[in-house]
Amino acid sequence: MPLDEKSFIPLYHQLAEELRGDIESGEWPPHSLIASEAELCETYRVSRGTVRQALSRLVQEGLLYRKQGKGTFVAEAKTTQQLSSFHSIVHDMKGRGLKPFSLILQNEKIKPGSHVRKILGLREGEMVYKVIGLKLGEKHPITLETTYLVERFFQGLDKISKEEMIKVPLYDIISEKYMVKITGIEETFEPVLTDEYEAQELQFPPGSLALVVKRITYTTDEVPFEFRTIVVRSEDYKYLVKFIYGAGTLDLQL
Amino acid sequence: MPLDEKSFIPLYHQLAEELRGDIESGEWPPHSLIASEAELCETYRVSRGTVRQALSRLVQEGLLYRKQGKGTFVAEAKTTQQLSSFHSIVHDMKGRGLKPFSLILQNEKIKPGSHVRKILGLREGEMVYKVIGLKLGEKHPITLETTYLVERFFQGLDKISKEEMIKVPLYDIISEKYMVKITGIEETFEPVLTDEYEAQELQFPPGSLALVVKRITYTTDEVPFEFRTIVVRSEDYKYLVKFIYGAGTLDLQL
Repeated sequence: MPLDEKSFIPLYHQLAEELRGDIESGEWPPHSLIASEAELCETYRVSRGTVRQALSRLVQEGLLYRKQGKGTFVAEAKTTQQLSSFHSIVHDMKGRGLKPFSLILQNEKIKPGSHVRKILGLREGEMVYKVIGLKLGEKHPITLETTYLVERFFQGLDKISKEEMIKVPLYDIISEKYMVKITGIEETFEPVLTDEYEAQELQFPPGSLALVVKRITYTTDEVPFEFRTIVVRSEDYKYLVKFIYGAGTLDLQL
Repeated sequence: MPLDEKSFIPLYHQLAEELRGDIESGEWPPHSLIASEAELCETYRVSRGTVRQALSRLVQEGLLYRKQGKGTFVAEAKTTQQLSSFHSIVHDMKGRGLKPFSLILQNEKIKPGSHVRKILGLREGEMVYKVIGLKLGEKHPITLETTYLVERFFQGLDKISKEEMIKVPLYDIISEKYMVKITGIEETFEPVLTDEYEAQELQFPPGSLALVVKRITYTTDEVPFEFRTIVVRSEDYKYLVKFIYGAGTLDLQL
């Protein structure tokens, strides 16, 4: 399909959109060499400058990568991380004999700061459990998660060892051991540039683009029991949320 | 609350988290001058370098801003944009006599590229309506939205004038004029740096951090009828998704 020269949308943006489509739909498989700049100029009837601008954008987004003296290649497709089926992705990974799927860095009872107290509707003096963990992908960590859980729902949580916690997803502990029913969830999404700490834990360069998800989870009568901050290494993972109306279940396993 | 020196989390990151809390909880109101570096050093018992690193991070995130020779101030709080109540936020704005809440830049019938065709499960030759629009905030655009709607559900959509479209939210047109029931929604979230086109439409500098939401909307029998890309100017807006289990309604008005 040719580009629309009369559109108010610049040609480089239109071209990037076309090429993104070819990549995301799998038409151009990962690690394949893409058409040369000259070929792209001819196919889309645009200037070299336009092609370069479009390709730079896609390199920056991590959809393409350049090899010195070799050309431009299609990057590995991003893995989609689905709110309601991460659990099964994780099980898949274990089934295939890969690395453990999470790491717990900290599990402690603390006095929350005023921000966390306000979000969780706590009285002065109420304590929370602070759990810091990583979800691990095949090659590197996918997410860095800091979770605050209200003490009165989860007494003794800090007595569960880190080794034990790695074996059972936190939401299974919440619903099966502590019998806390999840009735609602609220998430906000923000793009950030990671600081050194986050970058180090997620094993990528500081200043890299990441997604921050802030989640508040509610139980019966809209009482919040959890506040979680999730830093997603979004270079190769997409965060996905899916509602199916009428399905009647919220199967929260991430 | 003092910082934890024994933690594996660096002090600057802990401090940034504390200060972020003070800002987000409203303890430090917008446009107030924050404590000096020296005071922060004393309060949290950390070095000047640590304070500077924490403050830089918060400036970069847009939570603080600096005024030459005046000090560091708290920025205007981010507005939360909720999936299920954006409509009422918009009504608020109109009620207060502010600017119109959206602009339609394009509404045309086109032959979709292979990527859009694949996502929407279209047969070769099926057409879509491509609608490009902006949601406007008080000061500047909040989102740039590119929507593809399957022709067979929305015949004649391109005959609706841009002026008419501004008056009625697109999801009202979908459900009331075309009687298409929304039964599911899937969204992925990615951080990006905007290109010149996106930056110009959203009225901020190219290379600014933004959030890209890709939404597929389904009707009965899990048939997709819409694919939408939303670039959110996230400097001052948060994108919020809320599930309430058992509430039984998906009130999609964004």
